[in-house]
Amino acid sequence: MGKIFVDACLGKETPYTPVWMMRQAGRYLPEYRAVRTQAGNFLNLCHDPQKACEVTLQPVDILDVDAAILFSDILVVPNEMGMKLDFVTGEGPVFESPIETQEDLDALIGAEAAANKLTYVYETIKLIKEQLAQDKALIGFTGAPWTLATYMIEGQGTKTYNICKKMMYSDPELLHRILAKVTEVVKFYMEKQIQAGIDVVQIFDSWAAAIEPAKYDEFSWKYMVQIADYLKAKYPHIPIIMFPKGIPAFLDKVYGNFDVFGVDWSTPMALAKEKLGDRYVLQGNMEPCRLYSQEATRECVESLANTMKEGRHIFNLGHGILPDVPVENAKYFVKLCQDVSRRK
Amino acid sequence: MGKIFVDACLGKETPYTPVWMMRQAGRYLPEYRAVRTQAGNFLNLCHDPQKACEVTLQPVDILDVDAAILFSDILVVPNEMGMKLDFVTGEGPVFESPIETQEDLDALIGAEAAANKLTYVYETIKLIKEQLAQDKALIGFTGAPWTLATYMIEGQGTKTYNICKKMMYSDPELLHRILAKVTEVVKFYMEKQIQAGIDVVQIFDSWAAAIEPAKYDEFSWKYMVQIADYLKAKYPHIPIIMFPKGIPAFLDKVYGNFDVFGVDWSTPMALAKEKLGDRYVLQGNMEPCRLYSQEATRECVESLANTMKEGRHIFNLGHGILPDVPVENAKYFVKLCQDVSRRK
Repeated sequence: MGKIFVDACLGKETPYTPVWMMRQAGRYLPEYRAVRTQAGNFLNLCHDPQKACEVTLQPVDILDVDAAILFSDILVVPNEMGMKLDFVTGEGPVFESPIETQEDLDALIGAEAAANKLTYVYETIKLIKEQLAQDKALIGFTGAPWTLATYMIEGQGTKTYNICKKMMYSDPELLHRILAKVTEVVKFYMEKQIQAGIDVVQIFDSWAAAIEPAKYDEFSWKYMVQIADYLKAKYPHIPIIMFPKGIPAFLDKVYGNFDVFGVDWSTPMALAKEKLGDRYVLQGNMEPCRLYSQEATRECVESLANTMKEGRHIFNLGHGILPDVPVENAKYFVKLCQDVSRRK
Repeated sequence: MGKIFVDACLGKETPYTPVWMMRQAGRYLPEYRAVRTQAGNFLNLCHDPQKACEVTLQPVDILDVDAAILFSDILVVPNEMGMKLDFVTGEGPVFESPIETQEDLDALIGAEAAANKLTYVYETIKLIKEQLAQDKALIGFTGAPWTLATYMIEGQGTKTYNICKKMMYSDPELLHRILAKVTEVVKFYMEKQIQAGIDVVQIFDSWAAAIEPAKYDEFSWKYMVQIADYLKAKYPHIPIIMFPKGIPAFLDKVYGNFDVFGVDWSTPMALAKEKLGDRYVLQGNMEPCRLYSQEATRECVESLANTMKEGRHIFNLGHGILPDVPVENAKYFVKLCQDVSRRK
C-alpha cells in the first residue's frame, strides 16, 4: 500500500490532498500532556524512545493526519555536539556556555561522531515504524544550521538576535565556520534518520526571518541546500521539505534540489504558487490562530483549495499549532482538508 | 530657512538625502542613560517635558541627524484612556487589566477626552520647538491602532499574539470596536501634536507582521489610513510617514493619502521602489545590526544610495537602533548617508 503523503511530496497524483500540522504532537492534546507529565521534563521525553514514539503516534490516531512527525527537538544536535542544554520553565531552552570564540567551536564534537550520539532518536524512529500504519508516512526533521546556530551563539531564544548578528557583520568567517560544522553534523544526522526508517525529511529554518534578504542565502539557505544535495545524492527517493519561516521577500531567489517548499502564513499561497509552484510542491499555510474558530478555518481551507486546485499541494498550518487550540477544531481542520480536496 | 527633512518627505529636491534613526534618542547614548537614570524610570521620563525634551535633542546635537523625533512611548495613549501601565524591568510594559470584554472597552475614556490628558506630550513638543534649530524637523508619532490594541488585549508584549488573534478570528466585531475607539483617540492626539508644533507625523505599526496578509487591511491598515485622511484633510502641509514593520507580502495592496512609506529591513528597498516608489517617498532601511560594523554599514548605505539614486528617499534604519551599538558607528552612518547622497 502506498503512502499518499510521500506521493504528494513527489508531485504524484493522489486521491486527495494530504494534511499534517506542525507541532501536531503537542500540548493541545490531553494525551500528550499526560505523557509529558510522566516524563518529568521536555528533554527526558526526547530521550525516551518509548514515550517519544507514543506521542508521535497520538495525532495519527486522534486526528487521522496523513503523516506523523518524529517527536524530538532541534536542539538535541548542539546538545550532542557537547553543549549543555536545559529547558527552563517560562524561559525555554538555555545553553550554559554559548559559542563566543573559535576555541569554543573547536571544543565541540563534529560530523559523524556527534551524529552517532543521537541513538535515542534513531531508536524512536524504529519503534514508530513498527507501529505506524503502512499508508501513513513518518517525517524526520532537523533545524537548519542557521536556526541551530542562533541558539548556540545566543545561548537561548532572543528577540533581536543581536549577538549572532554582531558576529554576522563583524566576524562573518567565524559564523561561517560554526554553520559549516553544524551542517556536517546534520548531514550525518539526517542520513542516520533515513537509515532508521523515516520516509520524508523536513528542514526547519524557524528563524529565517532574522536575516535580511540580501544575506539569507549566504548565512542560511546555501547550508540547507548543501544538506539537501548530500541526501539527494544518496537517497533520491526520500522527499525533502524546506521550511524557511518568514521569507516572502526571498522567494524569487529560492533554488536547490528538494521536493517541497513549506509556505509559512506570512507568505500568501498565491504568491508562493506564482514564484515557486512550477518547481516545487507547496505545503501550508493556514494561520495557526484560525484554529480558534471553525468558521475562520473553513474560510482559509476553501481559499487554499481554490488557489491550489491546479497546483501540487500539501495542507498544513503556516507555523506550529498553539497549546490552547480545541482538539475538535484540529480534527475539523484535518477532515475538512481531506474532504474539500477529495471533491475536486 | 527650510527644513530639508520636510522637503524630502514632500518629494521636493534637496541638497542631499536626509537621515534620522528610529530610537535615535536611546540607550546607546551615554547622555540618554544619564537622564534616564535621573528620571528613575521610563514612564517618568515620558511624563517629564524638560527631560523628554533634553533626550529628544541629544541625537541632533551628537549625531547631526536631520530630524528629531519626540521622545515618548506609544503606550501613553492606552494609559491615558484609563489602563494602568507599568514598565517591569526585564519584562517590558504591562497593563494590569487587559481588555477582555465590551464592558472593559466601554470603561475606557475615548476620543478628545483621552487626547486632552496627554498634556505632557504637547508640553514636550513646545519645549523642543523652542530649542530645535530652524533647519531641523521634529517628528511626532503614534502607534497604529492595531499595535496599541495588541498590548491592550494581551496586557503585555507577546510572541504569539494568540489572545488578540483568538479575538480576531472568533469575535472580530469586538476587535473592530477596540480598534475604532483607539483610532478616534489617535486622530485627536495627532492633531494636538500638530497644533503643539510637530513638523511631520509617523505612524508606527510595529506589530504589523503579526497579522496574515489577507487580514492586514481589515484589522490595521484601514485604521491607519483613516488617521491619515483625518489629518490630511485639516493639515495637508504636514507630511505623514507610515511604518508598518514586516509586510513585504502586502506591498501590492498599499494605498492611502500619505507621503512617506517607511521600509523595514525585511523588505528589499528595490522591491519597495518597484511597488511603491512612484507613489510615495521611501524611508529606510538599513538592518540595524549592520551598525556593529562600519564596513557593513558602508556596504549597505552605498547600495541604498545606488538603488534610490533616481528615487525619492530618506535614509533610516529598517528598525530601531540597538542599545549596544557604538556611538561612533551611529555617527559614521549619519555622516556617510549625507555625504554619499551629496555626491550624486
